[in-house]
Amino acid sequence: MGRATEGEVRTAAVVGGGVIGAGWVARLLLNGIDVAVFDPAPGVEARTRAVLANAERAWRRLTSAPLPDKGELTFAPALGAAVEGATWIVEAVPERQSTKQAVYADVERFVEPDVVIASATSGLLPSDLQAGLRHPERLLVAHPFNPVYLLPLVEIVPGKATSSEAVERAMAFTRRLGMQPLLLRREIEAFVADRLLESLWREALWLIRDGICTTEELDDAVRFGFGLRYAQMGVFETYRIAGGEAGMRHFLAQFGPCLKWPWTHLTDVPELDQALVDKIAAQSDAQSGRFTIEALERIRDDNLVGILRALGANDWGAGKTVRRFERLLLDRATPELEADDLASPIRTVERIVPIEGVDTDGHRGEAFCLACFREATDTLLRLIGVDAAYLEEGGAYITAETHIRHLAAAEAGDRIHTATRVIEARGKQLQLYHELLDGAERLLATGEHLLLHVSLRTRAASEPGHVVKEKLGRLARLHGKLPRPPGLARFVDAVR
Amino acid sequence: MGRATEGEVRTAAVVGGGVIGAGWVARLLLNGIDVAVFDPAPGVEARTRAVLANAERAWRRLTSAPLPDKGELTFAPALGAAVEGATWIVEAVPERQSTKQAVYADVERFVEPDVVIASATSGLLPSDLQAGLRHPERLLVAHPFNPVYLLPLVEIVPGKATSSEAVERAMAFTRRLGMQPLLLRREIEAFVADRLLESLWREALWLIRDGICTTEELDDAVRFGFGLRYAQMGVFETYRIAGGEAGMRHFLAQFGPCLKWPWTHLTDVPELDQALVDKIAAQSDAQSGRFTIEALERIRDDNLVGILRALGANDWGAGKTVRRFERLLLDRATPELEADDLASPIRTVERIVPIEGVDTDGHRGEAFCLACFREATDTLLRLIGVDAAYLEEGGAYITAETHIRHLAAAEAGDRIHTATRVIEARGKQLQLYHELLDGAERLLATGEHLLLHVSLRTRAASEPGHVVKEKLGRLARLHGKLPRPPGLARFVDAVR
Repeated sequence: MGRATEGEVRTAAVVGGGVIGAGWVARLLLNGIDVAVFDPAPGVEARTRAVLANAERAWRRLTSAPLPDKGELTFAPALGAAVEGATWIVEAVPERQSTKQAVYADVERFVEPDVVIASATSGLLPSDLQAGLRHPERLLVAHPFNPVYLLPLVEIVPGKATSSEAVERAMAFTRRLGMQPLLLRREIEAFVADRLLESLWREALWLIRDGICTTEELDDAVRFGFGLRYAQMGVFETYRIAGGEAGMRHFLAQFGPCLKWPWTHLTDVPELDQALVDKIAAQSDAQSGRFTIEALERIRDDNLVGILRALGANDWGAGKTVRRFERLLLDRATPELEADDLASPIRTVERIVPIEGVDTDGHRGEAFCLACFREATDTLLRLIGVDAAYLEEGGAYITAETHIRHLAAAEAGDRIHTATRVIEARGKQLQLYHELLDGAERLLATGEHLLLHVSLRTRAASEPGHVVKEKLGRLARLHGKLPRPPGLARFVDAVR
Repeated sequence: MGRATEGEVRTAAVVGGGVIGAGWVARLLLNGIDVAVFDPAPGVEARTRAVLANAERAWRRLTSAPLPDKGELTFAPALGAAVEGATWIVEAVPERQSTKQAVYADVERFVEPDVVIASATSGLLPSDLQAGLRHPERLLVAHPFNPVYLLPLVEIVPGKATSSEAVERAMAFTRRLGMQPLLLRREIEAFVADRLLESLWREALWLIRDGICTTEELDDAVRFGFGLRYAQMGVFETYRIAGGEAGMRHFLAQFGPCLKWPWTHLTDVPELDQALVDKIAAQSDAQSGRFTIEALERIRDDNLVGILRALGANDWGAGKTVRRFERLLLDRATPELEADDLASPIRTVERIVPIEGVDTDGHRGEAFCLACFREATDTLLRLIGVDAAYLEEGGAYITAETHIRHLAAAEAGDRIHTATRVIEARGKQLQLYHELLDGAERLLATGEHLLLHVSLRTRAASEPGHVVKEKLGRLARLHGKLPRPPGLARFVDAVR
């Protein structure tokens, strides 16, 4: 039997293999955690593997940070076999309290009292769910959002009997998985996000029913307008801006009266009769029927990856969550540099080639290659003391000249690394030579860079600081003893 | 008096200089349209110019396509002076029907009958607004979303008396401005997007009032979860995916019953009393008070630009709208290439340096420079017949070697261009030389590129097609007569 208190979760069980269960499976596996799935429904294995394939594809685009080795996926023939040995249990079975409680009763027969059971319910109260458990303190709700492997949000909702230890473990564990846990202050049916979504959904049904717009037009009203805002700021921060410097009170004073206007159908619920179902289904076919669900999933995932990366570049919101996760992955993977290592070319960058790093149109591979060499230069500069503090003081190296030779192509998913050496370090000038290699040490590209030390204040060339000079000199002497790489000092020449 | 039927709108008037009015002003000016503003409130000019500054900053990041010369901005002392000569009138005064109708009566005294009046109301019915107009057929609602200069959505809502000609003109004109017009099928108070937002807003107020979460936590529940989805797909397309291959009917069958559950407060409206206002204002201060509104606006704009560019890279949704707009700008700015031009280096790329193209950390300028040279290569390749059809048939040039020399720095907002010449064209090899120049013909960087013709099917080197070979040969002979550029065939060498 696994004990949760032994440390990090290495083995998890997921009971229920629907869209949400499979999404949890993918996020856990990609974090290097072994997962056993139990779901007696037919086709679960194929569906789970399809979601996993989507997740792997998305993560290759999301980050070039080195991922841990993927966890092992097994499909258990019985609940006991799935949960035994697991130190984290996800329950993602259909939304019936009795079904869920029957699962918990079974689970408790096989696991230690301190193993957390995290229900993926999107609406039931954890206090109701935990009634009848032998150890109700272990149960809480961890409600994620589809696609679970990409959206960071997970609502953590403790019930009355949930222990603070279980809550803390859920917060830490989901953070470790690259998620953004939101701890609810009080339990309430449907929690926070789904309440907002449900109110919006009811109004949407009215708009379709009354023929104000089609499903496609309603979707456009979302994704060309406020949907763009909500990817980066929520309801209140957005309205705070609308209120201007006068702030939230001004906004409330201005828009408060609208609450009394009879603008929405909120006091009523549309009848979801056959006519309305037919109307919505036909409009949805007209809108999206040219795409398979698989195609829509990939489009969605590519868009989400792009949005997450764009927000990451601004170090904001969900993009910040991804960057924090990336740094965690990089920290785990960064090799320790010993003094002895310095005598040979330095392993400066280790990455997995993302989809956009592959040369499909003669362009994207180039940009990825340049980005690797830039990062390799940064790593080397940090090693010789050009770190955040040094830049803060106004010294920096800028690139004066770059020569890249593309020798062989890499495939998405390949592990690549760079080997960097100092060719010359004389006064303000620094000449570096990077090799980009794949896992089999095949040379993919070389980069030769002439850097110039400048003062960021005057933008003029300047001598580097003493410590930098000293470290650089030592490195240049060591690397000077290496045989000269054959690709050095080439010039572009079509006719050779 | 300007006549709308004379052609494109060159002069517009905006009556009302609040957040939405100023947003319209910015979008119009950046599209090269002269705008006269009328609003007797104090401080309008300063506030409008602040919004315009934000808009200009955002557009520099949004696109490197050359923008038309900015329109002229004037602040008129009286309504007549603002609207006279304008062929497009935006009404963005406070949300009172009588106030708006008084404005229309005034406007009609100064403009021709066919000039469209576009009300920016977010809720009033156009049929009510147009009652009393001498030419009610000219009035419609064009409801945009904040920030108007970045969000593409504009709801076009005709009233009962609105002419189809006015509707068509509004659709075409807003598209030309880079927007995504959504024509409502029937008029309804608050239209589509604001109805969805209002239902969500009411539920949000309940959640804060009942202490389920704070304003910051509610915002996180949006922007780390469904907000990311809504930036790229709307309500129905998202749920279609959730329904899986079984489609929308399956989703409705599964989730329909939830509509009957008593999960939300929809049947009731919270009292916006002093206690609730205080609570929201205090929580909002705790959440966002460390930022000024100006800072929040810039963060928001940077995020929106990033999201729009990310979606543009996938040619999807609002990003597709921006790309369509970009192509329009590029088409307008692309110089015609005469045979005579070919004898001198070819002007292949014209751009404005975006913020991220400026070299603040020794990196971003590099990537922009490489991107310019890649685009210059593409332009040249298109000129010699390597176009979409050629690529479709499986022939392409890939980069084998790149040598870039960074000689001088550019500033954001500078106009730059590239001058490209063919150095060698021999069999499968093609050697190009690009110069990156600023408006004063100052040399900023040079790029020397060795390209190799390949078959995209075999990935092996291959001879280019006959037409390409013939065109390339002619170009190489012409450019061979030019004096050799001094920066050619250099190699990276720190010690020279």
